Amino acid sequence: MIEVLVLHGPNLNMLGKREPGIYGRMTLEEMNARLKEVGKMWGLKVHAFQSNSEGEIVEYIHQADERYDYILLNAGAYTHYSYAIHDALRAVDVPAIEIHLSNIHAREPFRRMSVLAPAVIGQIAGFGYDSYELGLYAIKKAVERKVNAR
Amino acid sequence: MIEVLVLHGPNLNMLGKREPGIYGRMTLEEMNARLKEVGKMWGLKVHAFQSNSEGEIVEYIHQADERYDYILLNAGAYTHYSYAIHDALRAVDVPAIEIHLSNIHAREPFRRMSVLAPAVIGQIAGFGYDSYELGLYAIKKAVERKVNAR
Amino acid sequence: MIEVLVLHGPNLNMLGKREPGIYGRMTLEEMNARLKEVGKMWGLKVHAFQSNSEGEIVEYIHQADERYDYILLNAGAYTHYSYAIHDALRAVDVPAIEIHLSNIHAREPFRRMSVLAPAVIGQIAGFGYDSYELGLYAIKKAVERKVNAR
Amino acid sequence: MIEVLVLHGPNLNMLGKREPGIYGRMTLEEMNARLKEVGKMWGLKVHAFQSNSEGEIVEYIHQADERYDYILLNAGAYTHYSYAIHDALRAVDVPAIEIHLSNIHAREPFRRMSVLAPAVIGQIAGFGYDSYELGLYAIKKAVERKVNAR
Amino acid sequence: MIEVLVLHGPNLNMLGKREPGIYGRMTLEEMNARLKEVGKMWGLKVHAFQSNSEGEIVEYIHQADERYDYILLNAGAYTHYSYAIHDALRAVDVPAIEIHLSNIHAREPFRRMSVLAPAVIGQIAGFGYDSYELGLYAIKKAVERKVNAR
Amino acid sequence: MIEVLVLHGPNLNMLGKREPGIYGRMTLEEMNARLKEVGKMWGLKVHAFQSNSEGEIVEYIHQADERYDYILLNAGAYTHYSYAIHDALRAVDVPAIEIHLSNIHAREPFRRMSVLAPAVIGQIAGFGYDSYELGLYAIKKAVERKVNAR
Amino acid sequence: MIEVLVLHGPNLNMLGKREPGIYGRMTLEEMNARLKEVGKMWGLKVHAFQSNSEGEIVEYIHQADERYDYILLNAGAYTHYSYAIHDALRAVDVPAIEIHLSNIHAREPFRRMSVLAPAVIGQIAGFGYDSYELGLYAIKKAVERKVNAR
Amino acid sequence: MIEVLVLHGPNLNMLGKREPGIYGRMTLEEMNARLKEVGKMWGLKVHAFQSNSEGEIVEYIHQADERYDYILLNAGAYTHYSYAIHDALRAVDVPAIEIHLSNIHAREPFRRMSVLAPAVIGQIAGFGYDSYELGLYAIKKAVERKVNAR
Amino acid sequence: MIEVLVLHGPNLNMLGKREPGIYGRMTLEEMNARLKEVGKMWGLKVHAFQSNSEGEIVEYIHQADERYDYILLNAGAYTHYSYAIHDALRAVDVPAIEIHLSNIHAREPFRRMSVLAPAVIGQIAGFGYDSYELGLYAIKKAVERKVNAR
Amino acid sequence: MIEVLVLHGPNLNMLGKREPGIYGRMTLEEMNARLKEVGKMWGLKVHAFQSNSEGEIVEYIHQADERYDYILLNAGAYTHYSYAIHDALRAVDVPAIEIHLSNIHAREPFRRMSVLAPAVIGQIAGFGYDSYELGLYAIKKAVERKVNAR
Amino acid sequence: MIEVLVLHGPNLNMLGKREPGIYGRMTLEEMNARLKEVGKMWGLKVHAFQSNSEGEIVEYIHQADERYDYILLNAGAYTHYSYAIHDALRAVDVPAIEIHLSNIHAREPFRRMSVLAPAVIGQIAGFGYDSYELGLYAIKKAVERKVNAR
Amino acid sequence: MIEVLVLHGPNLNMLGKREPGIYGRMTLEEMNARLKEVGKMWGLKVHAFQSNSEGEIVEYIHQADERYDYILLNAGAYTHYSYAIHDALRAVDVPAIEIHLSNIHAREPFRRMSVLAPAVIGQIAGFGYDSYELGLYAIKKAVERKVNAR
Repeated sequence: MIEVLVLHGPNLNMLGKREPGIYGRMTLEEMNARLKEVGKMWGLKVHAFQSNSEGEIVEYIHQADERYDYILLNAGAYTHYSYAIHDALRAVDVPAIEIHLSNIHAREPFRRMSVLAPAVIGQIAGFGYDSYELGLYAIKKAVERKVNAR
Repeated sequence: MIEVLVLHGPNLNMLGKREPGIYGRMTLEEMNARLKEVGKMWGLKVHAFQSNSEGEIVEYIHQADERYDYILLNAGAYTHYSYAIHDALRAVDVPAIEIHLSNIHAREPFRRMSVLAPAVIGQIAGFGYDSYELGLYAIKKAVERKVNAR
Repeated sequence: MIEVLVLHGPNLNMLGKREPGIYGRMTLEEMNARLKEVGKMWGLKVHAFQSNSEGEIVEYIHQADERYDYILLNAGAYTHYSYAIHDALRAVDVPAIEIHLSNIHAREPFRRMSVLAPAVIGQIAGFGYDSYELGLYAIKKAVERKVNAR
Repeated sequence: MIEVLVLHGPNLNMLGKREPGIYGRMTLEEMNARLKEVGKMWGLKVHAFQSNSEGEIVEYIHQADERYDYILLNAGAYTHYSYAIHDALRAVDVPAIEIHLSNIHAREPFRRMSVLAPAVIGQIAGFGYDSYELGLYAIKKAVERKVNAR
Repeated sequence: MIEVLVLHGPNLNMLGKREPGIYGRMTLEEMNARLKEVGKMWGLKVHAFQSNSEGEIVEYIHQADERYDYILLNAGAYTHYSYAIHDALRAVDVPAIEIHLSNIHAREPFRRMSVLAPAVIGQIAGFGYDSYELGLYAIKKAVERKVNAR
Repeated sequence: MIEVLVLHGPNLNMLGKREPGIYGRMTLEEMNARLKEVGKMWGLKVHAFQSNSEGEIVEYIHQADERYDYILLNAGAYTHYSYAIHDALRAVDVPAIEIHLSNIHAREPFRRMSVLAPAVIGQIAGFGYDSYELGLYAIKKAVERKVNAR
Repeated sequence: MIEVLVLHGPNLNMLGKREPGIYGRMTLEEMNARLKEVGKMWGLKVHAFQSNSEGEIVEYIHQADERYDYILLNAGAYTHYSYAIHDALRAVDVPAIEIHLSNIHAREPFRRMSVLAPAVIGQIAGFGYDSYELGLYAIKKAVERKVNAR
Repeated sequence: MIEVLVLHGPNLNMLGKREPGIYGRMTLEEMNARLKEVGKMWGLKVHAFQSNSEGEIVEYIHQADERYDYILLNAGAYTHYSYAIHDALRAVDVPAIEIHLSNIHAREPFRRMSVLAPAVIGQIAGFGYDSYELGLYAIKKAVERKVNAR
Repeated sequence: MIEVLVLHGPNLNMLGKREPGIYGRMTLEEMNARLKEVGKMWGLKVHAFQSNSEGEIVEYIHQADERYDYILLNAGAYTHYSYAIHDALRAVDVPAIEIHLSNIHAREPFRRMSVLAPAVIGQIAGFGYDSYELGLYAIKKAVERKVNAR
Repeated sequence: MIEVLVLHGPNLNMLGKREPGIYGRMTLEEMNARLKEVGKMWGLKVHAFQSNSEGEIVEYIHQADERYDYILLNAGAYTHYSYAIHDALRAVDVPAIEIHLSNIHAREPFRRMSVLAPAVIGQIAGFGYDSYELGLYAIKKAVERKVNAR
Repeated sequence: MIEVLVLHGPNLNMLGKREPGIYGRMTLEEMNARLKEVGKMWGLKVHAFQSNSEGEIVEYIHQADERYDYILLNAGAYTHYSYAIHDALRAVDVPAIEIHLSNIHAREPFRRMSVLAPAVIGQIAGFGYDSYELGLYAIKKAVERKVNAR
Repeated sequence: MIEVLVLHGPNLNMLGKREPGIYGRMTLEEMNARLKEVGKMWGLKVHAFQSNSEGEIVEYIHQADERYDYILLNAGAYTHYSYAIHDALRAVDVPAIEIHLSNIHAREPFRRMSVLAPAVIGQIAGFGYDSYELGLYAIKKAVERKVNAR
């Protein structure tokens, strides 16, 4: 079984309550449940956590080295200035994918720049809940490729 | 009774001890006591907290949706780079006022820019302890206006 | 009696007529009347003037040295480029407070920067008419403190 | 009859005397006379004023609300920094057209940027006296369209 | 007869279909027809072309040296980065006028800058279809002036 | 059947030949074949084109209004400066997804900025061939959601 | 007799009263008197004016064409942003010298840039009252050179 | 025989006609003829093409992999913004040399930056027709060195 | 005995595990042990802590006022954006030295700027573990100087 | 007798030969001779040196502490980047005046910025040889003032 | 005989010793010898000097007026900041060519900008030793053209 | 014996005389003596030189290849712009350490950037004389490590 860390950053605990016109009405709990279900179908065990604290996010990533095979990370606003999270991603040997609910490149200028990008393998942005599911799909494909390569 | 969250950010626990020439000799406890007293006279119940942690400040703001009617926020240095706090203010339906002890617009260049400003209704800076009391006064006026409008 | 100069800059004569959705329906005359009344209650004699001319604003400020104890200045658009008004504030020994009706830090980029800020003691922005009344309140508090200090 | 305010900014009183190689030999008086004549043919009553004072230009614009249907504004050098004039244009409900004698976008860098542009409906630059006449023509066309739309 | 090249750049073939709220409901064909008609009245023979290709626009301009007396150019988005078109305008001896349907100086920052401006005699922006007709009018005036000068 | 336009920009015809260490050994033809196959399984009819010409890409997009339901666009280097393509995406009513083979946000500075982003719904970057397949998956999900919403 | 216009800009009427530690205790009247005296010795008739208004300064400069042979201009804060004064200097055929009491190049960043510089023949800064007297000396030298050249 | 692709970008078909004061009176045809002749003497077979289209230039470069040993590229204005041409040079295994007729580093700021430079081996600018001949000479030298190294 | 706070910031708990090619194979525990030993020899009692949390680092610094004589701070990535830590260093009366394992001035641009620098007495970067030991040596020297000065 | 160091920087040995249209036909030797003569009349002993070497200029300034009372420095192009000369001026207790032959503020952008300015008392630019003589005059005035102050 | 000054700037005396992987194994002496030989064949007398001192390079250039017909200048790192060398090139009437061993436009950002470029006729970069030989070839061609023009 | 080159840049010959409040009263001679003594104790032979000339500093560094094992370099103001010294450090195989007396990162903006940093192994700043001694200590540690590694 492939272990996947789904890590939600600051303010994502407010999902479903916050600006539903933009982010939809699905809560974080519902999202996590659905991701676990989809993951299961694809041989991926999803572990989901949320934290508003930059330090805690750094520590979840540190744990990945021993516990997880992939990271799906939506670092919320920290995406745009947390070099500490950038360095944490560099400090572990676990491939990470950057996830955003909204199309960050089409919003305020400060959201156009991701300081995490140089430390991840790819970025998926703009599809709401689907951004995460696309991330799982990318992992599924990568796993299949590895299996085939054996 | 109107519930007001007074939220003090990083290093404000050092008030009264830190650079008294600039910030005066009043401690945070004395400030809070005085604000509670003044608030009471004006029908405002003041709840005051201080935190050095960005994540904790985000969470105090999240609680506002259910517990408070107004926020007075002095986010200290986080004012200038915490898009996480900015997003937290956007995520709740509680009007917030940005407070600064000193005239931040006349200090180091990094202090001239507030990343929180687009998420608050107004900003009061430069009056030391009075900046907070002016914030309370602004709330008092807003409440009166609402009452009159009924 | 404390003499207070309330100085309104360019376009403020249009208040009440201009974008009432943003600035409210109160005219400048009504504002001044109310400020005089409130001031009186607090022992502050309010003198209010409006000018669209940068040079005239400079000259009102020059007169402050001999006639006024405090200045409340809403320099309108001049806030963002008039170094002449900045220098005028520096040239007199009268404390000034910068007032803005709207939350200038949340509007167009050119409004985020005040060239006057280094020459005033504080800044109040975003509370409509109340921004001025908060300014008077700040003066009232400063006067009380001086009296108590004797 | 449609009332049109033609407003000339700083240094335009020197026309015909100043750098004739660039600006031609026509004086401001001759320009105004010709514009009045052309306007008359097209049902437009032209009122022309010149001022070197930013404050006065602001005030001419304020008067437009009650007296004029359209503004043709050549704000000269104020084009590039007068947010006060920008705000004045915003404060009235009269459509304005920005006029320049020379092709400002091909001159010194400081002339490439118009701070007035967001407050006008269009911009005509580079045709000497004709820039104004083109502005009148644009008004003529707009008036005809309104008439036809009835 | 004066030969005028009216050159429409990328996406202008979509006129009438694209964002009619902004650009109106007139199609490019209708525009060209009207311009030809107006031109005829004024002694100007209008030749109109549209191209989405930067290279083709360059080549239409090259042909101007032998076939046309004036160019009216709406280069669309190429206005903001095509130095190749800029150089093409420099490479021919035919005066060109820059045309824009919308007030580009009041839109996204990337549209405030025209790299073509230093190679044209003037710029007309913000009047929809009328921007082109104003361009024709400018040519009519220039022709009359030349005739009178003989 | 849902019609999907897969549009490959400049240099993508060289895939499989160019820097295989980075882009893998799959050719564009193999990619298109695989996408058509996967699309078919999901009820999506894939139409794939490649062009090195900015103008041609603009025109493929124009055709989308009448022929396609979704666009997957890898605009290659044009991503970073083609405002013409940006405007083309704005000119049609067809949702588009931006695709990149490599993690553009982790490469040369000029590749960190997409001028197309404000005109698409989302962006997928860094997964090689899979970036496209993820794009198809995003369309599949969107189609399902619409169907369910009926 | 050579006619010299000495033109003092905004806030210079406060000289002697304002920050005497920096600007000395000499008033503007005393300065003017001394300059007239020194000028007389050197065959230069000094005419001195002060204005806080940008528009008035523009108009004093316009008068130079007919009344004065040289201009000594201390435009105060307008030095740093008044393109209107810059254009006025360009509009007359009278050589002007830029004067500053203090060493503006060693003060706040906004004072390091003079927008007037391209329109004057030279600049003298940092010598207090002597900056003006040096300006007169420069004129004296220029006059002698012209006389000798005959 | 060494095969050399000489590729001329936009507007170079106008050579000899355009600004002869700067670019001389030699036409592109004459240049190509002379280069072929000189090349022949040095064992270099010169194939020369001109295109105003960015996409076509990309495609000429793609063909180099199979047909040419060296590229001499004068990309004209595309030099300064065509990342598509930059990527094309990266996509082939053929060494390219950047050629400019004029000293681009001494002209308008936009010409000081070449986006192609990181993808070529060297740059020759400022010698008119000779810039190309110097490029051929550089190839001759490189060929000799390779021959000697065997 | 002199009390020294050695404070390690985010990701430093990963030392020895993370990129050993760059940071060596020594773990944080081994580093601390060695520093305590060396400190002891020099009359310095070393107290070492690590935290990934910005807020916690702020609080360790606050405690310095009462418990420590010197601070050696390696704030990791926070060095480059934490104005909160900068303010904390300003809020206590304890001299601090900035430590970096690698030569931050020779790495990515974001690492060239330290926002903490204005609040420390000096900076040591590039010597791996030795950077800390050099910091202790600097403290030893400062202590000796104070003792000698008595 | 007051000792004055007149220090000429790089390329000033070419005066009289270099671009006489701009710099006049007077050689450096003639300038120095005239300055010595004028200085003598005013009680100032002029010592003049020229050097093209930044290091040598630094050393001439170092000698000023013991040998000279004032420095007139025309540092030529070093004015715009030599922080070493800036530091040298700071390292001695001798007042210095910055001299320029031409109006540097009206030339290429790189000449608008003087890195020396914060280390001198004033700046005189634009008067050719007279710039130096004005510098001597400024010294004469300063000396008289000191004498009078005794 | 045509006299050519070949001037090598800082660190070029280390050639052959320094980073041979990049710069090759040829020493400066060998380069000069080869250039003299090649020059001789073409009727050019090569005089070669190397200096690490900016001032000395300035002086070698000054001598060119009387001794040399052309300058080949590789100013090394001074290329990027020495306005003194720029001014020296302007001060003499001898055409100069800028030479670089490596393709400076493809290296660190500070090397992409040449401050000398506006003062030379052309630039050759990226061909190692051949860059110089190409420079000689350019001179040979220029000489032939002059001879032919007689 | 390990040979260490201690190289002092411009203005450091003024130490002890220049701004003693900042730099202390120790002269360069006393510093060198002390460093030699300390070095001797640690098996390091210190050779100390000072130069105000950029070219000379370049040459001292060139000699390091044959004479020294380590370089301690305080390049003074050259630190901030001398790419020639940067290149010299790159041209030799001798590890260098950058030394600064003051905390350059906390001073004027121009001192925050070191152009030498990418060519040294580390940087020590802010400890006055001790900065050098810390540099020696770093060398001592490096030597011990090498000895132990044998």
